[in-house]
Amino acid sequence: MAVLNPDILTPSVALDCVVFGFHDNELKVLLLKIKGMDLWALPGGFVRIDQDLESEAHRALEIRTGLNEIYLKQFHTFGSVARNDPKHPQRLVDHKIIEPELYNWFSQRFISVGFYALVEYSKVKEPVPGPISEACEWCSISDLPELMLDHSAILEKAYLTLKKELNNQPIGLNLLPKRFTIPELQSLYETILGKKLDRRNFRRKIMSFDILICTNERRTGVAHKAPLLYEFDEQKYHEANLAGLSSGW
Amino acid sequence: MAVLNPDILTPSVALDCVVFGFHDNELKVLLLKIKGMDLWALPGGFVRIDQDLESEAHRALEIRTGLNEIYLKQFHTFGSVARNDPKHPQRLVDHKIIEPELYNWFSQRFISVGFYALVEYSKVKEPVPGPISEACEWCSISDLPELMLDHSAILEKAYLTLKKELNNQPIGLNLLPKRFTIPELQSLYETILGKKLDRRNFRRKIMSFDILICTNERRTGVAHKAPLLYEFDEQKYHEANLAGLSSGW
Repeated sequence: MAVLNPDILTPSVALDCVVFGFHDNELKVLLLKIKGMDLWALPGGFVRIDQDLESEAHRALEIRTGLNEIYLKQFHTFGSVARNDPKHPQRLVDHKIIEPELYNWFSQRFISVGFYALVEYSKVKEPVPGPISEACEWCSISDLPELMLDHSAILEKAYLTLKKELNNQPIGLNLLPKRFTIPELQSLYETILGKKLDRRNFRRKIMSFDILICTNERRTGVAHKAPLLYEFDEQKYHEANLAGLSSGW
Repeated sequence: MAVLNPDILTPSVALDCVVFGFHDNELKVLLLKIKGMDLWALPGGFVRIDQDLESEAHRALEIRTGLNEIYLKQFHTFGSVARNDPKHPQRLVDHKIIEPELYNWFSQRFISVGFYALVEYSKVKEPVPGPISEACEWCSISDLPELMLDHSAILEKAYLTLKKELNNQPIGLNLLPKRFTIPELQSLYETILGKKLDRRNFRRKIMSFDILICTNERRTGVAHKAPLLYEFDEQKYHEANLAGLSSGW
């Protein structure tokens, strides 16, 4: 059963992580299956009183994925009263998922800080289930199982934010190989957006961001019209991450 | 002294509001002066256990400004351990700003949800100080007084977010008169960004967002080359607010 010491935790505060995984033009999300129930949850946790919120989110993810340098982004804090379902902690006790002593902790009114991450999921060796879960898996975002509480709303908001951020943030570092072609970068955008993009508009726009370096080398093994290979200009990439893309004002 | 009943409040959770005020090409921010101290604070508050986070933020602002339909946006949740200064609650007790019984409440480890708003400040009749403050004033963002705890970092992050959001969100509704000229809209952007923009680029870009309706009328009283008056297409404006501006992918 879940081992948890409420005495060292910040009351009323939880965190939930939406981990998007990209690999081979597929977008998935990391979910935990609650023990003995046909119910799934986002990985998350609580915030120890003596620890920073952000580092606790990183820690929660590292435990699940083994990845320790994930780019995690806070996207929204969920604080409606309706998100707490009084039947939920009782169900956890009934299914012997938590000790009865933890009922009070789990029946608090929680405000949950949502984080999202986007990782190359082939780098995650084997996702690790947590104390209240029996499986941790990459699930297709187009075919999600039933999620507990308001977790599907949290996931949806994270996905909306990710798509919106493509207008203002660079993307691709750590998701693509160090050198990549413009069509490969376009595929990444298309996978996230879930739609096809016009080839010429994409090229024009991505170039206007001024975050790519052309290596003047071409993808080998392709005989005719081999596409040029690009790299991210990491300094400009990180600057754009902080200040927004230069297509701005 | 401050009247506060911790029994009805969500432990560990606070909220802080950064209210930007725009009027006549000036950008200011609403601050509270702590009673008897040369120290200022952002307006904020706590979250009653039976109330939604967002509605509590609206309520806090309505109390200070009298405005009840402010567009409030969550921008970041602040949760580092370092943000809690153990000397702060003692100072509040020493200055008789809070009852000694409230010392424990104020010395909790707080996680604070930050919201920002942008209002036409001439519409705010007279800002109202709160229980721990003796004044509530519009202060120039280029000349800020000393702020308590990490409030200047919260303010800075809100301002950075506001400037970044100009790339992806429409702005101007409720800040400009119903009908306005493109140069007037440009002034609003310039005031927020704190820099001059190229006239032709601004016009081209703002038109590409497809949120303006040209009225085909001109500003009267200007004899020669009177500029055309525009209105926001409110439906498209609100759509862009949800989905991001159409200059996106």
